[in-house]
Amino acid sequence: MRVTNGIILAVEERVRKLQTPSLSQKIFQVDDHVGIAAAGYVPDARILVDKARVFSQYNRLLYDEVADVESVSKHLGDLTQEYTQYAGVRPFGVSLIIAGVDKRGSSVFLVDPSGSYLQYEAVAIGSGSDQVTQFLENNFNSSMTIDEASILAVKSIYLVSEDKIGVSHLRMAIIDTDAKKLRRYTEEEVTKFASLSKEKFGSS
Amino acid sequence: MRVTNGIILAVEERVRKLQTPSLSQKIFQVDDHVGIAAAGYVPDARILVDKARVFSQYNRLLYDEVADVESVSKHLGDLTQEYTQYAGVRPFGVSLIIAGVDKRGSSVFLVDPSGSYLQYEAVAIGSGSDQVTQFLENNFNSSMTIDEASILAVKSIYLVSEDKIGVSHLRMAIIDTDAKKLRRYTEEEVTKFASLSKEKFGSS
Amino acid sequence: MRVTNGIILAVEERVRKLQTPSLSQKIFQVDDHVGIAAAGYVPDARILVDKARVFSQYNRLLYDEVADVESVSKHLGDLTQEYTQYAGVRPFGVSLIIAGVDKRGSSVFLVDPSGSYLQYEAVAIGSGSDQVTQFLENNFNSSMTIDEASILAVKSIYLVSEDKIGVSHLRMAIIDTDAKKLRRYTEEEVTKFASLSKEKFGSS
Amino acid sequence: MRVTNGIILAVEERVRKLQTPSLSQKIFQVDDHVGIAAAGYVPDARILVDKARVFSQYNRLLYDEVADVESVSKHLGDLTQEYTQYAGVRPFGVSLIIAGVDKRGSSVFLVDPSGSYLQYEAVAIGSGSDQVTQFLENNFNSSMTIDEASILAVKSIYLVSEDKIGVSHLRMAIIDTDAKKLRRYTEEEVTKFASLSKEKFGSS
Amino acid sequence: MRVTNGIILAVEERVRKLQTPSLSQKIFQVDDHVGIAAAGYVPDARILVDKARVFSQYNRLLYDEVADVESVSKHLGDLTQEYTQYAGVRPFGVSLIIAGVDKRGSSVFLVDPSGSYLQYEAVAIGSGSDQVTQFLENNFNSSMTIDEASILAVKSIYLVSEDKIGVSHLRMAIIDTDAKKLRRYTEEEVTKFASLSKEKFGSS
Amino acid sequence: MRVTNGIILAVEERVRKLQTPSLSQKIFQVDDHVGIAAAGYVPDARILVDKARVFSQYNRLLYDEVADVESVSKHLGDLTQEYTQYAGVRPFGVSLIIAGVDKRGSSVFLVDPSGSYLQYEAVAIGSGSDQVTQFLENNFNSSMTIDEASILAVKSIYLVSEDKIGVSHLRMAIIDTDAKKLRRYTEEEVTKFASLSKEKFGSS
Amino acid sequence: MRVTNGIILAVEERVRKLQTPSLSQKIFQVDDHVGIAAAGYVPDARILVDKARVFSQYNRLLYDEVADVESVSKHLGDLTQEYTQYAGVRPFGVSLIIAGVDKRGSSVFLVDPSGSYLQYEAVAIGSGSDQVTQFLENNFNSSMTIDEASILAVKSIYLVSEDKIGVSHLRMAIIDTDAKKLRRYTEEEVTKFASLSKEKFGSS
Repeated sequence: MRVTNGIILAVEERVRKLQTPSLSQKIFQVDDHVGIAAAGYVPDARILVDKARVFSQYNRLLYDEVADVESVSKHLGDLTQEYTQYAGVRPFGVSLIIAGVDKRGSSVFLVDPSGSYLQYEAVAIGSGSDQVTQFLENNFNSSMTIDEASILAVKSIYLVSEDKIGVSHLRMAIIDTDAKKLRRYTEEEVTKFASLSKEKFGSS
Repeated sequence: MRVTNGIILAVEERVRKLQTPSLSQKIFQVDDHVGIAAAGYVPDARILVDKARVFSQYNRLLYDEVADVESVSKHLGDLTQEYTQYAGVRPFGVSLIIAGVDKRGSSVFLVDPSGSYLQYEAVAIGSGSDQVTQFLENNFNSSMTIDEASILAVKSIYLVSEDKIGVSHLRMAIIDTDAKKLRRYTEEEVTKFASLSKEKFGSS
Repeated sequence: MRVTNGIILAVEERVRKLQTPSLSQKIFQVDDHVGIAAAGYVPDARILVDKARVFSQYNRLLYDEVADVESVSKHLGDLTQEYTQYAGVRPFGVSLIIAGVDKRGSSVFLVDPSGSYLQYEAVAIGSGSDQVTQFLENNFNSSMTIDEASILAVKSIYLVSEDKIGVSHLRMAIIDTDAKKLRRYTEEEVTKFASLSKEKFGSS
Repeated sequence: MRVTNGIILAVEERVRKLQTPSLSQKIFQVDDHVGIAAAGYVPDARILVDKARVFSQYNRLLYDEVADVESVSKHLGDLTQEYTQYAGVRPFGVSLIIAGVDKRGSSVFLVDPSGSYLQYEAVAIGSGSDQVTQFLENNFNSSMTIDEASILAVKSIYLVSEDKIGVSHLRMAIIDTDAKKLRRYTEEEVTKFASLSKEKFGSS
Repeated sequence: MRVTNGIILAVEERVRKLQTPSLSQKIFQVDDHVGIAAAGYVPDARILVDKARVFSQYNRLLYDEVADVESVSKHLGDLTQEYTQYAGVRPFGVSLIIAGVDKRGSSVFLVDPSGSYLQYEAVAIGSGSDQVTQFLENNFNSSMTIDEASILAVKSIYLVSEDKIGVSHLRMAIIDTDAKKLRRYTEEEVTKFASLSKEKFGSS
Repeated sequence: MRVTNGIILAVEERVRKLQTPSLSQKIFQVDDHVGIAAAGYVPDARILVDKARVFSQYNRLLYDEVADVESVSKHLGDLTQEYTQYAGVRPFGVSLIIAGVDKRGSSVFLVDPSGSYLQYEAVAIGSGSDQVTQFLENNFNSSMTIDEASILAVKSIYLVSEDKIGVSHLRMAIIDTDAKKLRRYTEEEVTKFASLSKEKFGSS
Repeated sequence: MRVTNGIILAVEERVRKLQTPSLSQKIFQVDDHVGIAAAGYVPDARILVDKARVFSQYNRLLYDEVADVESVSKHLGDLTQEYTQYAGVRPFGVSLIIAGVDKRGSSVFLVDPSGSYLQYEAVAIGSGSDQVTQFLENNFNSSMTIDEASILAVKSIYLVSEDKIGVSHLRMAIIDTDAKKLRRYTEEEVTKFASLSKEKFGSS
């Protein structure tokens, strides 16, 4: 997940053999221009994504323009903070990467269960995120092309995944800075980046 | 439980000798085109099924069309998530398989007490579900006919049932992709598939 | 308790010497056509019976017809489920047998504190219910006459009662399938069935 | 406490030397025709008696007739049941004997903290009630005259009282079946029955 | 504290050397004709006295007559009972003697934290109350004059007080049966009764 | 803190080197004629002082006259009592000295966390208050002049303070009986009284 | 952080390599003339800053003038006090330095989780604050120029920071007394003060 002339969101979703893979549980589209990747307790992520969607639509209605990515992130951060301070609810059990393109350009935010939100060039969450972050700090630079970033994203997931061959457990989405639209990668595109990744970094 | 040109829901309901078997406690009809199979704490299932029925009817009234199977599943998932986050209630103690046919075709969802919902080709819940899932992964394929699937469903239940002979503890329902209607199998139909199952897989 | 061309409800109520026996604490009339037998914490039973009465009268007002026995049972099951899920109340401490005759014929339901409700041909609740159920599974069949069933009911109670001679601790009621009315047996009738029971099964 | 052609309520109230004995803490008049004797936590009894009084007056207003003794008893039983089931309150710590004369004749009910209410010919509550009940079962019969019953009531209290001589700790009230009015015995009447009791049963 | 042709309320209030003695913390005037003496947690007493004052004024407004002493006492008893039964509050930590003169004459009531209220000729509360009650039972009789009672009241306090000489820790008030008004004794009056008490009972 | 022809409030506030000393945390002005000195948890004091200010202004609006010092004290005492009795709040952690001059003259009250309020000629609160009270009982008399009282107040603080030389940790205010206005002493005035105190009592 | 003819706010924010440094998590602008520096749980700080912003805007609307720095600080102190006293919330986990310039000149306040607020010339919060405070007490004096203060602020952070060389972890803002505007220092300015600091104090 990172920024060049677009943003790449990539997650690993392990799927049982008879599960229908069409419904992603970890990458969500909030609005045309904003996507969320989640790590942790998925049902909580869904609730927060729904709240982000309402916030985003409400922003369109009220101000007649799309919501800033930072506004969406701050809204989710304030919400998760509230769930840590008040009795009668439990804190949310999920970390979210909010990525999007707005009039200030593309940006990526990380919201965690404490309610903090921080802006990143590239960030990883979930199990193995320390290893991936290390890898990204060594290999990522923000002047890469979208395709180079996609290759790096695939490699990042292979790094910590048990299954280092197939692509069925890879889900990726791109938000293009010009188009300002989130688009999920097809399985063909993911496969292409997976093989390019193996060329570049080896398959181990 | 699976999808071909229809969906099969099959459950085992052990019945005491003097219990009246006509009232199923584990397969529920939500709407013409949607059925639910439950495993766990039955009274909780009933409450959730009632909420699904209200949601489904409300959808007909509001949009003048039947509810998507995914909408029903997401509604139940959100509901069960809520019961994990707020004080003053306990989480629901039941897993549900929501199966139905809508304008996007047939689909099967699994909602568990955490509030997650996932789409499957074929899925088993309850005690012994690991063994059945293993069996289904080896034997199921989505191009089977409805009758082949029914035979597989009977076998799945026999696999983990203590009573491997009679059919009085088997309840099955079918949702035909074209008719878009849930229909419960009669005892004769269940008996037929039970004997076909024994021919095909042996009786052990 | 069972069904032939009517339903028999029978309970044992041990009474202190100076207690007035006219007020039954364990058999309640909900409506003309529905009765309830309770085992457990009697004050809770009374509260549930009152709620069943309100439900039944409300049904008459709203739909201008008597409530189905199953509707009454589901209503009580939903109510007891609710008391297991929400904070601020304790679950009900009583099991109920709801018996009645409606336009679908006679039926008997069992509602327990978990909120589940199941339909039976004949069922026993309370202390010693396992022994009685065993006895009923061996001796009951649904084509018996009402009188044969009454004799069986008396025997069932003698089986687990400490007092195996008198009838002052026996309370019985009948709901006739044709009359659709609950009628309590007089002490003479109970005495008659008690002596017939001793003829048939011996007095031990 | 019992029924013949009237009802006798009798309690022991131990009084400190300088306490004013005119205010009874254990026998309460609910309405002309209904009295309550209490054993346990007196302030709770007072609250319940006040609620019985409101119920009774409300009945007069609404139906233009006096409340049945059973209705009053059921009302108090339902109330005490409620306090066992809901959080935020503690159960009542008192048992009540509700005695009265209504259009169905005279009757005596016992309501305990669990919310159960039972009808009796004669019943004793409080410390030593087992011994008194035993005594009543041997000596009471419902065809006694009011005066014979009064003598028995005095004896019942002497049985379990530490002070077996004076009458200052005895409080008695009578509800006459014909007059349908509760009347408290004067100290002279109590003295008379106390001496008759000693003649009949001896003074030990 | 007692009744003859008036009521005497007497309390010991130990005062630090620089404390201003004009403000009594233990004898309160509720209305012209009603006073309260408190033992225990003084701030709770103040709250209850305020509620008694409101009750008393409300009674004047509603019925155009002064409140009975018993009504005030029952009101306070019901209030303290309520604080023992409901969650979210703690019981009151104070016992009150309510004394007053109304159309039924003079009367003295004792309300304790459990909510019970009892009528007395003479009663003592607080530390050493057993010893004082014993003393009063031996020496008090209700045909004494007000002045004899005042002497006895002073002696009662000296009995259990550490400071058996001065009068600065004595507070007394009188409610005259005819005047129906509470009046606090001046320091001179208290001194007079203190010396009369020493004459009569000795100073030990 | 005491009364002659005025009232002196004196507190020790230890200040870090770079703290701005202009804002007193322990002496508050409630109204022209009323001041409060606090010991304990300062933020709680501030909340109570704000409530006293509102009470005082409200009194001016409602009755067109300034609030009695006792009314303010009783208001704060009732408030702190309430916080000891109800669930959902913690008791206040602060003791307050309320001093003021009203139409009845000057007066000083002490309100503690239990909700009690007592009137004093002179009183000390906080750590070392026992030693100071002892000192005041020996040296204070209410016919002193304001200046003599001020000297005593400075000495009282030096008694228990670790820093027995400077005056930067001394804060004093005076309420003049005639002017009925609270005025804070300037640092010069405090210095003057500090040196007079050392002359009179020595500097140890 | 201190006052001369302006105020300096300085914080250390450690940033991961790929984090976007543009969004400060520890220095917030409340209004043109007021800034907040936070130490502790950042999401809580954000909530409090938002409340300060609302308070500040509300003040402009209501009184048509900017809020006093002390009013803002008292508002935040009262708010944090409230969260310590009431059930159902947890106290805030953050200390705040509120700095600003209003019609009374420049001022700096410290609000901590207990709800206390104190005014300072210069103050440090967070880990290592004791050491920094010691350093400031020795080196700070309020007649310094803004630039001298900035150098001291940089040194203060280097004192307790693990990273004693770069400036990427330094964030500083200035509020000029005349301009009454908060302005963040650019990285160039911070670098300049950092090198001046090393000249003056050495780099260890």
